[in-house]
Amino acid sequence: MSPFGSALGAGAEFDRIRGLARRWQQRAHDLGDDCALLEAGGQLLAVSLDVSVEDVHFRRAWLAPAEIGYRAAAAALSDLAAVAAEPMALLLTLGAPAGEPEATFDGLADGVADACADAGALIVGGDLSRAPVLLLDCCVIGRADAPVRRRGARPGDRLVVTGQLGGPRAALEAWRAGREPAAGARHRFARPGPRHEAARFLAQHRVRAMIDISDGLAADLGHLLAASDVGARLACDAIPVHPDAAAAAAALGEPAWRFAAGSGEEYELLAAVPESVSDAELAAAPVPIAAIGVIEAEPGIRASAGGVPVALPPGHDHFRG
Amino acid sequence: MSPFGSALGAGAEFDRIRGLARRWQQRAHDLGDDCALLEAGGQLLAVSLDVSVEDVHFRRAWLAPAEIGYRAAAAALSDLAAVAAEPMALLLTLGAPAGEPEATFDGLADGVADACADAGALIVGGDLSRAPVLLLDCCVIGRADAPVRRRGARPGDRLVVTGQLGGPRAALEAWRAGREPAAGARHRFARPGPRHEAARFLAQHRVRAMIDISDGLAADLGHLLAASDVGARLACDAIPVHPDAAAAAAALGEPAWRFAAGSGEEYELLAAVPESVSDAELAAAPVPIAAIGVIEAEPGIRASAGGVPVALPPGHDHFRG
Repeated sequence: MSPFGSALGAGAEFDRIRGLARRWQQRAHDLGDDCALLEAGGQLLAVSLDVSVEDVHFRRAWLAPAEIGYRAAAAALSDLAAVAAEPMALLLTLGAPAGEPEATFDGLADGVADACADAGALIVGGDLSRAPVLLLDCCVIGRADAPVRRRGARPGDRLVVTGQLGGPRAALEAWRAGREPAAGARHRFARPGPRHEAARFLAQHRVRAMIDISDGLAADLGHLLAASDVGARLACDAIPVHPDAAAAAAALGEPAWRFAAGSGEEYELLAAVPESVSDAELAAAPVPIAAIGVIEAEPGIRASAGGVPVALPPGHDHFRG
Repeated sequence: MSPFGSALGAGAEFDRIRGLARRWQQRAHDLGDDCALLEAGGQLLAVSLDVSVEDVHFRRAWLAPAEIGYRAAAAALSDLAAVAAEPMALLLTLGAPAGEPEATFDGLADGVADACADAGALIVGGDLSRAPVLLLDCCVIGRADAPVRRRGARPGDRLVVTGQLGGPRAALEAWRAGREPAAGARHRFARPGPRHEAARFLAQHRVRAMIDISDGLAADLGHLLAASDVGARLACDAIPVHPDAAAAAAALGEPAWRFAAGSGEEYELLAAVPESVSDAELAAAPVPIAAIGVIEAEPGIRASAGGVPVALPPGHDHFRG
């Protein structure tokens, strides 16, 4: 979920990542984006690792093996979308307890293969190990002819987001409460569609900075702003909310935008595009793209809802607990 | 340790890998070597994933965090040596229990950085997650101008191996018996030197097929022969044995060659070179290279020791238990 990097927001996980990066100094190269960029034969390649661990990123009671596989691969492939790279290849490390039934391996393999097919990537290798729980670590490699980074947003840019947010959180909250989630919310968690088409569209529309939403809109916006050394004004009422998330928020008595802004593992794209990119241009995108704010020179996020200043929810942190 | 692949020897782990490869069919591309080979901008790249899981590949009681990190990275980098690729970059997925002390992360980071420095690779990214045990999954990427595969050995070729075998097993047996291993054996386990220089030397000496010894000489020889669709005659007395392994074998009443041939996680290279590569040429190698047998057309391994036919020990299998 979280690449090693220096241009990160707050949180124990990010402190640890910063600690590693400091420790590595010259050996570590250009950390701090969704993908590492490598040059080979004059071609820029984007590479990312993304791990899914049982009982940290998913529970078996929630998902079938094919869904676990799809989700793990899609999450990794989403890092390629975030830098506007074209998926080429995936390698999979698969860990499972001794005695794990064959059907689990078959399901995981099918899910990973489906996600690769959807994104246009080939499975080229991997590793297999015994482990105390299921774990899937996906390495994805893509062609990055014109990579988009987290840095690059400029004052005046429009802040845009793809899709509708909050579905994965609505699914998680239902499972945690012992209920089966609404089908739409469950689908958003179990089978997130990586936004490669949307990334291509944004790349063709002069996108300046981009990140995928894995830690939650609020947290990932913080990463993008920190990397770009800017701030933002955020119109929370403009945040697109999944209908099942709106219903879940209403049941909790929480504003829908707040519920959605705190939802992680969305794998939607958050981007800064020049002011000149019009609503009409955005309306032609292959997936809905909503304008939710404006980049400003002053650091920090100035969020408002219903004309009133509001505070954003905190992000995901796998080390918190 | 074990890449996904079809050209593998026997064992439950390899059956599972074969099952995944069958399941993936067209989505999976050219599986079954130490590295996947990708073409980008006219440049061939070798890529490999290699995972180290606490209590499967190492125990904390045996190794300091810096050694765990070094070993995990060196094991992955060894896959690049096995295909004669030049190390470029490493990405690290690090999993650790909640509340893991900062010193563990520092040590792991130092070890990974040292192994990368020794091999000439940069750390370019990774992922961080909570996990029930320590886990390090290393993705390594290298330039493969003239990659060497497991397939390619031909009848008449000389079978050669780098270094001295058995050290890692001697260390493991000591730890398992509650003793501190001999220093040399411990060093071979804790800080395996990837054989990039030896790989370069072998590539310059017309090497036809190569593999690194992670599952044990006997098992990895089986993989190389299966991939090349050949067999071999193996002179077990010629297998180079580490002095600490010879001592450990003597204490167990086991032939030294047998002890060494069953030792996994060696990260030495096993290769087939043309008959025309002389002993004098091999003697000029940057590390000792021993000739231990001859490739034959007939499938299977015909091993002898002291002029008598012998059976080889089985290999490592992480799923066995």
